[in-house]
Amino acid sequence: MERLPGFRDFYPEPVPEGDALAWSASLREHIFRTWRRVAQRYGFVEYDGPPLEPLGLYKVKSGDEIVQQLYHFVDKGAREVALRPEMTPTLARMIAAQFRQYKKPLKWFAIPQLFRYERQQKGRLREHFQFNADIVGEPDPGADAEVIALLVDILRAFGFSPADVVVRISSRSAWQEFYRRHAASSAKDASGEYAFYQIIDKLERTPLDESKKKLAALGIAWEQVEAFLQESPPTVELAAVIENLHARGLASYVQTDYRIIRGLAYYTGVVFEAFDRQGQFRAIAGGGRYDHLIRLLSGGRLDLPALGFGMGDVVLTELIRARGLAPNSSARIQVFCLLENKALDKPTLQLVQQLRDAGVAVDHPLGPEKSDKQFRRAREAGARILVTMEQAPDGMVQAKVRDLLTRQAISCTLHEATGVVLRWLASPENAAQPAQILP
Amino acid sequence: MERLPGFRDFYPEPVPEGDALAWSASLREHIFRTWRRVAQRYGFVEYDGPPLEPLGLYKVKSGDEIVQQLYHFVDKGAREVALRPEMTPTLARMIAAQFRQYKKPLKWFAIPQLFRYERQQKGRLREHFQFNADIVGEPDPGADAEVIALLVDILRAFGFSPADVVVRISSRSAWQEFYRRHAASSAKDASGEYAFYQIIDKLERTPLDESKKKLAALGIAWEQVEAFLQESPPTVELAAVIENLHARGLASYVQTDYRIIRGLAYYTGVVFEAFDRQGQFRAIAGGGRYDHLIRLLSGGRLDLPALGFGMGDVVLTELIRARGLAPNSSARIQVFCLLENKALDKPTLQLVQQLRDAGVAVDHPLGPEKSDKQFRRAREAGARILVTMEQAPDGMVQAKVRDLLTRQAISCTLHEATGVVLRWLASPENAAQPAQILP
Repeated sequence: MERLPGFRDFYPEPVPEGDALAWSASLREHIFRTWRRVAQRYGFVEYDGPPLEPLGLYKVKSGDEIVQQLYHFVDKGAREVALRPEMTPTLARMIAAQFRQYKKPLKWFAIPQLFRYERQQKGRLREHFQFNADIVGEPDPGADAEVIALLVDILRAFGFSPADVVVRISSRSAWQEFYRRHAASSAKDASGEYAFYQIIDKLERTPLDESKKKLAALGIAWEQVEAFLQESPPTVELAAVIENLHARGLASYVQTDYRIIRGLAYYTGVVFEAFDRQGQFRAIAGGGRYDHLIRLLSGGRLDLPALGFGMGDVVLTELIRARGLAPNSSARIQVFCLLENKALDKPTLQLVQQLRDAGVAVDHPLGPEKSDKQFRRAREAGARILVTMEQAPDGMVQAKVRDLLTRQAISCTLHEATGVVLRWLASPENAAQPAQILP
Repeated sequence: MERLPGFRDFYPEPVPEGDALAWSASLREHIFRTWRRVAQRYGFVEYDGPPLEPLGLYKVKSGDEIVQQLYHFVDKGAREVALRPEMTPTLARMIAAQFRQYKKPLKWFAIPQLFRYERQQKGRLREHFQFNADIVGEPDPGADAEVIALLVDILRAFGFSPADVVVRISSRSAWQEFYRRHAASSAKDASGEYAFYQIIDKLERTPLDESKKKLAALGIAWEQVEAFLQESPPTVELAAVIENLHARGLASYVQTDYRIIRGLAYYTGVVFEAFDRQGQFRAIAGGGRYDHLIRLLSGGRLDLPALGFGMGDVVLTELIRARGLAPNSSARIQVFCLLENKALDKPTLQLVQQLRDAGVAVDHPLGPEKSDKQFRRAREAGARILVTMEQAPDGMVQAKVRDLLTRQAISCTLHEATGVVLRWLASPENAAQPAQILP
């Protein structure tokens, strides 16, 4: 029985090669942990909803076409349901149900797995994990700066420098004003405006002649767009956001760039996307302000300004690997307790338990196994310290503790052994290792 | 648009009351983190598979009836697919695909969300999260002891004492032997044996007369069962497991109890279930040895002894709450930087960034807000420390740092403020708080 196409398995290290959809579970956990840690520093709190929602929840925002791209089906209760393709509708549903409960502005984040099923896209992933952070209930550009700062600090936490990544910031409202000023009167409606955003969004990936032709159909000359791209000063809002990020010392990670517009219809203000500087990968993250979306999604029950961004795990993982920033996670344990004499089973188990109670990652042979095989297994599992129980000539049980890194060795009582192990593990030679195994 | 019946939303604190399916996201994260931490101490490594699998994967083990209890549908590629109802088939699929890659025994864990759709079960949850830990490739009872020790240590990590919980250990093989000795020859087949396991599994929840009647139909007298329950000594295997747990100092959490048998057909050796001692809740966890299942699930490609257990989040959460063991998670931040003078926006943002870079959870007003409202928000968010920038008479900018817990206050330079905050947060009065917010 095979895995479904477009889905990934997450394996322990060493991750098998030769299967492009066998990914690393420990790298995934590193990413989740980093997202969570930085979001919490910013005072964002976690939420989550079901991976399965009523299909209608997605039609409200995206119309009937979205159904083409969803995993959807009719359940046994005759309900039309869908695996969630995005998180914002769930966020709006949850907030609309309970908004009196929370003080505004809300700063919420989630790490949902999202699903898309476009037919005819062989080899494309049909699921990914996406960090979502949103601020709801704050119209001030200070909120725009706060979410962009969060995005930058997440990138920094993964180890990316300003030479690796950039957040390109733009203004949907400036483009809207541009469109309403320059478009032919016949094209001044929502569908013309949406078509225009699509053209600008795809500029960098489309032959210029094609873009020019499409713009002309809306009554807009390429030269007008070019002038806007090159000469427009930042809007008042954008200037406030940039100044704010400057005060935080994060300005080297951002630049104003009107080529960013975001394709979707519902953005209303500042928009932004994060890229690798080399332009090797698709966007790492994207977001912006969507002040009318909560009202739409909540069926008019709630009208709050809002903004946020999403960052998927796929491009991010590729970029982390490409820049050599994946943490070394080959060590599964810190200590291996060898068992060379079956009669010393009991004190060995005692020590195993003591060490684990102290938070140390420990393994030991579960059944009879030759000494050299135990030793090999300890090395393969990344153990730094080996402990062997021994019967001293006087009959007393002693623990022999060996540090494979510093090559220290000591014999001590069972009682003393835990302390020795903890001291050695805490020594600087190994500072990075326990933290990676035991977060 | 409403949430689907049987699904939960996970809300930030304070979790709204009055909606039985609005659960706490931070308590969920506490549970996941505890599962992960203890498993890693035991040298278990994480894996995960897709939440959607081919329907056939579940029929192999459980027959066609399982389909009645699944969320299943036909996808756009005409594949029969199902939301995973359990993790073991995925584990077997993943191991069968890559078993050469890993050294035996494997110690793997996962925290999947699982789905069941039984019609006519209004009010029942249709999803839950389940910690799964399995050891594959080790026949020795030392492996059985290791997974039971892991289960006990997870319960200990949540704060449960031997007075709160007990792991009842039994032997499926002993019951199998009993059945083969005592059953009527006409009932000595797989279906009779399975029926017998079901009767024993449901003994405590079934009127005795009914159980007696069902046993008689298999040629077994109640007195034989009763004698076995009361008088049978532990099997050799069970004795080895108990002795092993005794050496670890965990014996007070376990007891031999032949009333445990596990309903499912595929167990082959030691089986166990964890309960609250008061008998208030359903089983907290259950598992055992299933030495032939990997062969079955892998279509004969792989034949390895295996064992493991599952622990769901629902009963566990109820028990944690009932015993008052949920961590206090009302504090969303540690520090709030007030902004009383718009001209001091820049140094305030500088300090916010410095503190966050140091790992501190900080919030600040995102837009103009009155002082008293800022102060109220800081308190509501659980901030222990308040910082306000002030312009000293000589024009210098100073930071006023206030500790709401110790009532200390100090004025210092912006440069010194981060150090002051870190020292105060590290002071014992607050030792527990940062750890809860920032794991």
